[in-house]
Amino acid sequence: MRDRYQLLRSWPPLTWGREYGRDALTNDLSAAVIVTIMLIPQSLAYAMLAGLPPQVGLYASILPLVGYALFGSSRVLAVGPVAVVSLMTAAAIGKVAPAGSTEAIAAALVLALLSGLMLLALGVLRLGFMANFLSHPVISGFITASGILIAAGQIKHILGVPASGHTLQEITVSLLENAGETNVFTLAVGVGAAAFLYWSRRGLKKLLVNTGLRNRLADLIAKSAPVAAVGITSLSAWAFDLGDLGVKLVGVVPRGLPPLTVPTFDPDLWLSLAASAALITVVGFVESVSVAQTLAAKRRQRINPDQELVGLGAANVAAGFSGGYPVTGGFARSVVNFDAGAETPAAGIFTAVGIGLATLFLTPLLLYLPQATLAATIIVAVLSLVDFSILSRSWTYSKADFAAVSATILATLFIGVEIGISAGVGLSLLIYLYRTSKPHVAVVGQVPGTEHYRNVLRHAVVTDPSILSVRVDESLYFANARFLEEFLFDLVSRNPEVRHVILMCPAVNAIDLSALESLETINRTLAETGVTLHMSEVKGPVMDRLKRSDFVDHLSGRVFLSHHMAVQELKAGSGRQPAS
Amino acid sequence: MRDRYQLLRSWPPLTWGREYGRDALTNDLSAAVIVTIMLIPQSLAYAMLAGLPPQVGLYASILPLVGYALFGSSRVLAVGPVAVVSLMTAAAIGKVAPAGSTEAIAAALVLALLSGLMLLALGVLRLGFMANFLSHPVISGFITASGILIAAGQIKHILGVPASGHTLQEITVSLLENAGETNVFTLAVGVGAAAFLYWSRRGLKKLLVNTGLRNRLADLIAKSAPVAAVGITSLSAWAFDLGDLGVKLVGVVPRGLPPLTVPTFDPDLWLSLAASAALITVVGFVESVSVAQTLAAKRRQRINPDQELVGLGAANVAAGFSGGYPVTGGFARSVVNFDAGAETPAAGIFTAVGIGLATLFLTPLLLYLPQATLAATIIVAVLSLVDFSILSRSWTYSKADFAAVSATILATLFIGVEIGISAGVGLSLLIYLYRTSKPHVAVVGQVPGTEHYRNVLRHAVVTDPSILSVRVDESLYFANARFLEEFLFDLVSRNPEVRHVILMCPAVNAIDLSALESLETINRTLAETGVTLHMSEVKGPVMDRLKRSDFVDHLSGRVFLSHHMAVQELKAGSGRQPAS
Repeated sequence: MRDRYQLLRSWPPLTWGREYGRDALTNDLSAAVIVTIMLIPQSLAYAMLAGLPPQVGLYASILPLVGYALFGSSRVLAVGPVAVVSLMTAAAIGKVAPAGSTEAIAAALVLALLSGLMLLALGVLRLGFMANFLSHPVISGFITASGILIAAGQIKHILGVPASGHTLQEITVSLLENAGETNVFTLAVGVGAAAFLYWSRRGLKKLLVNTGLRNRLADLIAKSAPVAAVGITSLSAWAFDLGDLGVKLVGVVPRGLPPLTVPTFDPDLWLSLAASAALITVVGFVESVSVAQTLAAKRRQRINPDQELVGLGAANVAAGFSGGYPVTGGFARSVVNFDAGAETPAAGIFTAVGIGLATLFLTPLLLYLPQATLAATIIVAVLSLVDFSILSRSWTYSKADFAAVSATILATLFIGVEIGISAGVGLSLLIYLYRTSKPHVAVVGQVPGTEHYRNVLRHAVVTDPSILSVRVDESLYFANARFLEEFLFDLVSRNPEVRHVILMCPAVNAIDLSALESLETINRTLAETGVTLHMSEVKGPVMDRLKRSDFVDHLSGRVFLSHHMAVQELKAGSGRQPAS
Repeated sequence: MRDRYQLLRSWPPLTWGREYGRDALTNDLSAAVIVTIMLIPQSLAYAMLAGLPPQVGLYASILPLVGYALFGSSRVLAVGPVAVVSLMTAAAIGKVAPAGSTEAIAAALVLALLSGLMLLALGVLRLGFMANFLSHPVISGFITASGILIAAGQIKHILGVPASGHTLQEITVSLLENAGETNVFTLAVGVGAAAFLYWSRRGLKKLLVNTGLRNRLADLIAKSAPVAAVGITSLSAWAFDLGDLGVKLVGVVPRGLPPLTVPTFDPDLWLSLAASAALITVVGFVESVSVAQTLAAKRRQRINPDQELVGLGAANVAAGFSGGYPVTGGFARSVVNFDAGAETPAAGIFTAVGIGLATLFLTPLLLYLPQATLAATIIVAVLSLVDFSILSRSWTYSKADFAAVSATILATLFIGVEIGISAGVGLSLLIYLYRTSKPHVAVVGQVPGTEHYRNVLRHAVVTDPSILSVRVDESLYFANARFLEEFLFDLVSRNPEVRHVILMCPAVNAIDLSALESLETINRTLAETGVTLHMSEVKGPVMDRLKRSDFVDHLSGRVFLSHHMAVQELKAGSGRQPAS
């Protein structure tokens, strides 16, 4: 309970607000300018990716940022629409409504609210540990596959052809069918914008610095490249009437601040979106908390995962009530915020003000913005997420991790994002259970002249034929309880001269009720054949728990503090006790 | 691969058939007679419980027994319809067809075939370990709740009223609504049969032995009580025209051997039954393998879980092609078979012949059998499964196990059997992950005058302010990788004088790729603050794996064989190395 009150007492703005000064204000303001410039084209593009009208992306970049700034624990996390969550949103609302429809917008609000409530619940109940279900390799694989899928899905906007599909093969087939109708003007805009953006990421800053610009200004200009691409292509579209030549434009975007929206409470809709919301919640949280943790560690700051859940929860609830869609902390954007010197979450509030001003004054400029430009923005951004090195890395280190990663990548690409991430989580759990269900168990013997006992297969050791010393290198729980029974019965049946079995437990960190019942079975069954069961080096917490049951009273043998003591006493015969 | 060939070479009948003699034949035959007598009313009753016509139960007790006898590894397991699987069958086919309909029979065939194929696949792929998902406490809770649900569902037959529902509250409400229509004749038959059966289980054998009967004969007579109940109530129904008085009778049952049935291959039906089939497969296998293992251990025999999967798979495939429904090894029946002296699976084949003869010659006798008698048989049988001691036992030993058990029981009773077992499995996994995601981590110090290092909170130990010794009592994997980062960063930030962190790893049985990446992050981040990371007492297999990555090359400190060595060297200053 102490911790829960502490959570309230440590309301983040109380901490950073107290020491807020002019320096922090300057740094936060300049970081906010850079992030705003970066966020405008991104929020339009990711809304398109999610199958939503462009203004939804802008709305998702206003109040949610304020929500996070008030409740989040990271000082530099930049919240808003991100690529992977937008893709997952598209998959989720695609199941209940056609892309771009009013129903899709309504579903996006519900999805944001649901995800927000889930995040808040996890935060308040301190269940942040559930994010641990997603292993590093699985999330890496998922992000790589999502990046490919997102890029493939945007090619239609670059070619100016219709195409559909949620999997790589569907998208490919659809693109190939329609590639004949490619609009050359759209293609020119799209490829031009993509090439410009790619180059500005790689070479622009260095070029500017070489021409004598200050480092910071060069960086700002390079970061503004997407805005420049938006401006130049919009201007071209206006000047050359590209819309009449078949180039699809963003068109009319409503002007003004986000509307107050109330997500519909339709139990059927909530139920059908609940599983998707749960996946978005977990993926969004894991992505966000990793970024926040990495950046915090660089400045020797700490983040609080449960507080992060509350912050992201507030952001998504805000999205649900202000015409947005699910948001989370973005990697690239947070790094930019960090590099630009943001010191406190106030930078997020200033960014929200910036985007708010954009919705008030800049939306008419979007009338001529080619969709191909937004597609180019997305493609260049997501391709930086694609990283296949996790495959070779996991192949070398552990085939089990490799299996989980490749299943995640293949299922995401060829079946769907939700199946993909679920398969990854499911398979990593299954593999873990499999591994622990057949734990490493060694028969050990004494290293001559010492009190050490080592694996008889690896070392030259001394054993006594009437004593079987078995070391189990795993906690005993339901997944391996049966294994232990089988292993010991088999071993004893192959060694008829054995009179004592000693389970050496220095690596047994827990014994659950299933395992306790197995130990009771082992004890009883061995006693029936005249073999006594002993235990040695049982850890304190494990012993405390065993004492809550009557297992120790019924144990045919004894529990010894050290294995050496056990062997000495049993050899001397003093350890022999009749089975009870 | 060696093992897979061995599986073929060790075809069970080759083993027991070779040594089959007259003694075995006599024992197997007499056991088969007793099991047949027990199985006839049971198979009729369980078919009724599954919402299927009575002959389906008989058919499920013929070829499936032969299938298991040819491929199973247990010498005494008695396969056939069992209560819990019948209840799960009712729940599964209730979703696709009304009880008793032709579609229900067809669905039961598909369910048996699907479950059979799943069992075979698991057996051939040697995936029997998946049964480990079901912890002992969860299966105990599930069986107890199923027993209550089954008994409640049979009360309508005892009262002679219509009632429906799949959950305890639905059944209760439905019974209360219709209790006014209770048929007194049905009630008399039902209560009379139940009382007789209950008494015969408790006191009959003792009474018979006391009157001077030989033990074995007394046992046989006591075991025949259900047959006597069937005979007496049928005779009464015929003599007093109970059918005209409103007592529901079994009626016409087709005479003859099981038909050859081919389960329909309807992809939609297969898909909608697949999840249910998977649950039936797991529950059936776990129940069966536990019985088989317990009985085998009593005679110092071994069973092979993968061979068991093949045997049960063959039994269920046979059920699908011979008009049956899902079967598995029954607890009570196998114990009877064992006690009656069955020596080999041939006893199962003789039982199948016995049931076959019954379908040929005895079905006309079922014309007057009251359904209330069958309901009484079921109630008396399943109430012996109900055992709430698991609740108190788990409460004392571990609240986590208690939570899993109570969730299983409550969900089974009040939501449904499939949700119930799934909730149990899900929750026990979740609890396990939760526990391992926050492992026991201790800061350790030297016990003065020894080379032992113990928890600073539990023991009076000596520590050096510049060296932090941390012992992790758990394998490092994705669920706790982030925890370790947080723990260490927090500890180091609170101890600014620390220069060396030594991770003591005697209880770390594995390090997966997620944990490796966390260790790399820890190493890098600590190095940036001038703190060196070392490891000690890393186990052989863990070290072998670490060497597959470049982690050890990049480690800022060293890996020491013993923790004492590490502390000595670092104190002397010789262990200090610049961060690489």
